[in-house]
Amino acid sequence: MEKTLIIGHKNPDTDSICSALSYADLKNKLGVNAEPARLGEVNKETQFVLDYFKKEAPKYIESVDNDIKDIILVDHNEFQQSVDNIQDLRISEVIDHHRISNFETKEPLYFRAEPVGCTATILNKMYKENNIEVSKDIAGLLLSAIISDSLLLKSPTCTKEDVDAAYELAEIAGVNLETYGLEMLKAGADLSDKSIRELLTMDAKNFSLDGANVEIAQINTVDASEIYEMQTDIEAEIENIVKEKDLALFLFVVTDILNNDSEVLAMGNAKNNVEKAFGETLVNNRAFLKGVVSRKKQIVTKLTDAFTN
Amino acid sequence: MEKTLIIGHKNPDTDSICSALSYADLKNKLGVNAEPARLGEVNKETQFVLDYFKKEAPKYIESVDNDIKDIILVDHNEFQQSVDNIQDLRISEVIDHHRISNFETKEPLYFRAEPVGCTATILNKMYKENNIEVSKDIAGLLLSAIISDSLLLKSPTCTKEDVDAAYELAEIAGVNLETYGLEMLKAGADLSDKSIRELLTMDAKNFSLDGANVEIAQINTVDASEIYEMQTDIEAEIENIVKEKDLALFLFVVTDILNNDSEVLAMGNAKNNVEKAFGETLVNNRAFLKGVVSRKKQIVTKLTDAFTN
Repeated sequence: MEKTLIIGHKNPDTDSICSALSYADLKNKLGVNAEPARLGEVNKETQFVLDYFKKEAPKYIESVDNDIKDIILVDHNEFQQSVDNIQDLRISEVIDHHRISNFETKEPLYFRAEPVGCTATILNKMYKENNIEVSKDIAGLLLSAIISDSLLLKSPTCTKEDVDAAYELAEIAGVNLETYGLEMLKAGADLSDKSIRELLTMDAKNFSLDGANVEIAQINTVDASEIYEMQTDIEAEIENIVKEKDLALFLFVVTDILNNDSEVLAMGNAKNNVEKAFGETLVNNRAFLKGVVSRKKQIVTKLTDAFTN
Repeated sequence: MEKTLIIGHKNPDTDSICSALSYADLKNKLGVNAEPARLGEVNKETQFVLDYFKKEAPKYIESVDNDIKDIILVDHNEFQQSVDNIQDLRISEVIDHHRISNFETKEPLYFRAEPVGCTATILNKMYKENNIEVSKDIAGLLLSAIISDSLLLKSPTCTKEDVDAAYELAEIAGVNLETYGLEMLKAGADLSDKSIRELLTMDAKNFSLDGANVEIAQINTVDASEIYEMQTDIEAEIENIVKEKDLALFLFVVTDILNNDSEVLAMGNAKNNVEKAFGETLVNNRAFLKGVVSRKKQIVTKLTDAFTN
């Protein structure tokens, strides 16, 4: 039987994993033979979610097999964030909440992007549109994705729709939003067993900004100063990555999930664009960005302007 | 008061004009200060529709003024088909049914593309989703767009959703679908007062196929042989256009709306890709393409393959 694969982005976060699992559930209930997959390791936050709601992680894939008829992208559309052989595949749907860039199809498709804080918020709506009830465990997955993307509803990307969906889903999932949410975020912020390489790659996304090759890695923590105790080693590793990937800029974003600020570290020939973007001087390659927590809405947009103008 | 402009593609067809008018109506009813505009002349088919349902054409614009906050694209997404200064504008929404290509934003937006035959079919759904009643004249506009894009429900791009919407809208508009539809298509197929230049530009779209600059012009007629009596003059004019626009290929598609076939004329250095795409030999630069009526679904797709492989 023909199969449709549903995938989130590389370096999957909780939204990418949970949205792939949930949309596959919805598709199956609508009679479509769909299967979720992931393009990278399950992070600690997501593992906490899967354990809590007793769900298996989607299977890991490196590329998409020939027996796959269609693929559906959730939580991303930019090809460089997707599976390596994306150019050869027929994309039948995209469900996303990011800017649109480096995306192209030969044929019309179902493309649904909405300017909300989380893909899961759109999926919650799609269950309703199709008159399919959200089960308890799926509600848990969708809720967790919203908490993750919105840093417990505090990110500027979070909309009223996300908030409403979160409270509704918490009710179905049978958890207290605040208590469960903080527990989940803290599980993700436990970086004790991570190598420096892992800190720099676990949630890294690649962007083409006015033609420049830019990588932005973000980690959540409850203590940024602890991370920067290792600054010398971090910089040495970033230098390697910049060379390996021929980057114009590597921006390391350490986000304090309790105070909702970020301390960033910039390296690469184009690092002056970080100063230009945020009006902050880099001291020792670092800058404190007050109130900045969203890569998408507060970082990529400003950096794009800085690179373009 | 801040204004949102709603525009269809250059060389507007009935879907582009009627969808801009209708979506502005829906937006207004939802409390948004939206205004429709057009990027080119109203063709005869569309004028027939506007006269029939007593609607004014949207205002013509060459570029978007500075006082415009947002723009909404209907019936297209490729920047080269849109207003010239599109790169400087904030696109807040796209409602479309074409492939996605050469489209990019800095920020997340509402992007809704569905693989249906007509933008108006999606808009009809959006009226329902927002619990806004479709008025008699708007029903007429939406219906006309569907008839136009689907060649009276006969094009392979036409889906069950389009058919259902068309019958539903004909009822509201108070017209007989078949009778009204044929009358409308015939009004559009009256080419008697057109110069050769107009025939080649009135419904021309530009595509970048694997980097090659390709223009595909389509006209509807009830007698293709009549058009090709002027072949020598047509070819001379196409040669001029190929030079002016530095085209790799100009494909002129003459579609017989009674028999649902097309007779094409290809010129430019890459015209062999037309032979490759359709497995037909060009004789005297021409080929008969049986059953081919859809530029989007039957021509652009195959040509893209031919250019790519």
